[in-house]
Amino acid sequence: MSQVFIADKEFEERIQRTQAAMAGQNLDVLLAFSTESEPALVRYYSDYWPSFETAVVLIPAAGKPALLIGPESMVFARSRSRIERIIQLMDFRESSQPNYPGSKLPTWADVFKEYHVTKLGIAGWHMFPHAIYSNLAKALGGATIVDADAVVRSVMITKSKGELNCLREAARISEIGLKAILDNIKPGLTEVQVAGLATAAMLNSGAEATGYPVWCCSGPNSNQAISRPTHRRIQAGEIVQVCVGAKVSGYSNSIGRPLVMGHCDQEIRRFLEVGHDAEEMTIDLMRSGTPAAEVAKKVHGFIKDRGYGDTILYGPAHGCGQMECEYPFVETSSTFNLVENMVFQVDIFLANREMGFRWEDAVIVTNGKAEQLSSLGREVKCLDIKERI
Amino acid sequence: MSQVFIADKEFEERIQRTQAAMAGQNLDVLLAFSTESEPALVRYYSDYWPSFETAVVLIPAAGKPALLIGPESMVFARSRSRIERIIQLMDFRESSQPNYPGSKLPTWADVFKEYHVTKLGIAGWHMFPHAIYSNLAKALGGATIVDADAVVRSVMITKSKGELNCLREAARISEIGLKAILDNIKPGLTEVQVAGLATAAMLNSGAEATGYPVWCCSGPNSNQAISRPTHRRIQAGEIVQVCVGAKVSGYSNSIGRPLVMGHCDQEIRRFLEVGHDAEEMTIDLMRSGTPAAEVAKKVHGFIKDRGYGDTILYGPAHGCGQMECEYPFVETSSTFNLVENMVFQVDIFLANREMGFRWEDAVIVTNGKAEQLSSLGREVKCLDIKERI
Repeated sequence: MSQVFIADKEFEERIQRTQAAMAGQNLDVLLAFSTESEPALVRYYSDYWPSFETAVVLIPAAGKPALLIGPESMVFARSRSRIERIIQLMDFRESSQPNYPGSKLPTWADVFKEYHVTKLGIAGWHMFPHAIYSNLAKALGGATIVDADAVVRSVMITKSKGELNCLREAARISEIGLKAILDNIKPGLTEVQVAGLATAAMLNSGAEATGYPVWCCSGPNSNQAISRPTHRRIQAGEIVQVCVGAKVSGYSNSIGRPLVMGHCDQEIRRFLEVGHDAEEMTIDLMRSGTPAAEVAKKVHGFIKDRGYGDTILYGPAHGCGQMECEYPFVETSSTFNLVENMVFQVDIFLANREMGFRWEDAVIVTNGKAEQLSSLGREVKCLDIKERI
Repeated sequence: MSQVFIADKEFEERIQRTQAAMAGQNLDVLLAFSTESEPALVRYYSDYWPSFETAVVLIPAAGKPALLIGPESMVFARSRSRIERIIQLMDFRESSQPNYPGSKLPTWADVFKEYHVTKLGIAGWHMFPHAIYSNLAKALGGATIVDADAVVRSVMITKSKGELNCLREAARISEIGLKAILDNIKPGLTEVQVAGLATAAMLNSGAEATGYPVWCCSGPNSNQAISRPTHRRIQAGEIVQVCVGAKVSGYSNSIGRPLVMGHCDQEIRRFLEVGHDAEEMTIDLMRSGTPAAEVAKKVHGFIKDRGYGDTILYGPAHGCGQMECEYPFVETSSTFNLVENMVFQVDIFLANREMGFRWEDAVIVTNGKAEQLSSLGREVKCLDIKERI
């Protein structure tokens, strides 16, 4: 059973490093916002992951942080939070706005009594609700409110030893999930049933949850860049795109594979091979010091040279950590260089009108060849389904 | 396998009924916003459920709606949406803000070229991101923007025959999930492993997903009103709070049960009984025409009379449909009467400092006694775990 987790001391260091980055922007207070489906920031600072309700970690320029939660989550938050001070605000209740007759929770004005705020930053800027923003702005009077995503990204962008271990463990369990599919997938199962095989195996093997709902996209559904499994039954002869990711102590990665159910004709094989080879090439290129844009340009150049340029939707890799997909993105327009201990999902998604697939594995950037967190089943291979029918 | 779903015609009627409700508020356009973890509104109008990205359904005062999605979801959305017109906007990309070099998606100004807007309503008001609101407000010039949650609630609050069938099917599958736990739970399993048993059974039996992550809260974790399963191992003699809910064609409900692992002493039994009896009482009281506040007052009165008043956190029932928990809420402060074909989760959550539990089942309000969607295992019973150890 998984016992990999982040130490209390590291949570304290995260706050200190963030306060140092805040000083560079003259921020008096930073609010890091999260929802149930985008838990990264609040989890990073507090280890708490909101459910139904939302949450914020408040980080002052100096001193201790506070975790702000909704009216039903106090006992839950106390059992999880690495931040001692927890404050309940009505603004973080469920979006359907339950009544709590007689409730006397503090307001934003109460929260800000002890801070002198002339400039406040919000991380999770692109999710932060307008309704909460309005209440906050009123309580702050004339203070400036700015997007502080860049401040937090600068702290989160390279991973600590503890984080790398969580990601390694997540990948180990993701391989258990993928293996459950490889061993049991067969024509006649629905996409949801196949996703269920991996989900069950990972929850039984130390994952705290899946990093995102497991994908299984078969035949005509295989060309969806973002998807969910359906009740469609898998058929012999078609491509099935599966993506499997476990979550361990807040950290998620993903393994993506195209599976061919039985016979694989030459045209499909060529298409799969270009994706496979593009992934191997990307892994080779991702070394500390390399400009991210150079990786994207070379890999996209390779795919175009092989005649599949019109099947590209996005760059060959994206950041990975608290979210299976997070900043930064390796694109032809990227302006950053790869740095040791950045973690990426190499993610080659190619699709045409009839079919598509994803080859995906997480890697840790080092000074040499990247450390691969998963590799199970990364080969163009058609499953022998005769025995399974 | 589940084949229960909402017909295309019903999606068209929802738009028409919403347009009628919009006329009462002089709304020229309504935007219904959803995220991955709060998919209700976009799913209700389009059958599409965003993942990673967010989405809006745009409903004009007259004429056809449009589904607004992010840059990676077009193929996915086309395969799911009941709304034909789909527009991609950069504002609905992932919150980590990937680059899409060379992308030329339409802007809000492009979207609003064909509408004359003096008043626009937003449903999902309490989630709608400030960053998107700012872009929208700029594109709309001086138009008034208002909270339109009440408009949409008036349309969604009673359920159609199709919706009731989805909810009945969700409850049938939830019982399969609960049964997997009742048959297999034993000391030594972790909370996550127990949650995995129900998740696997439901995904294998026609659920499209779980309605929310299955809960299993054991011993000292059992008093959490909102929770997630942990790696804690279940022990003999303790209360385990389990909550299980399947999702069918977008509709979710939930079954909550306290399980006692073996011997149950008299004090625990009395506590469980008051909750059980409060649920039976609530079900009896929930009839068409009854003021919701009267139900809450009587049930809370009963719990107080039995000496457990300080274990109450919220009212005895809440709405249920697209979300396992949605508007309206049955509280002592409620101002509405129950109406035929409203669906509620009867949800008796009681907790003290040491332990807690939830008795929960969905009911459909009728003119007589409510139709119960689930009842499996609703009895104060201590599991015989001797054979399982």
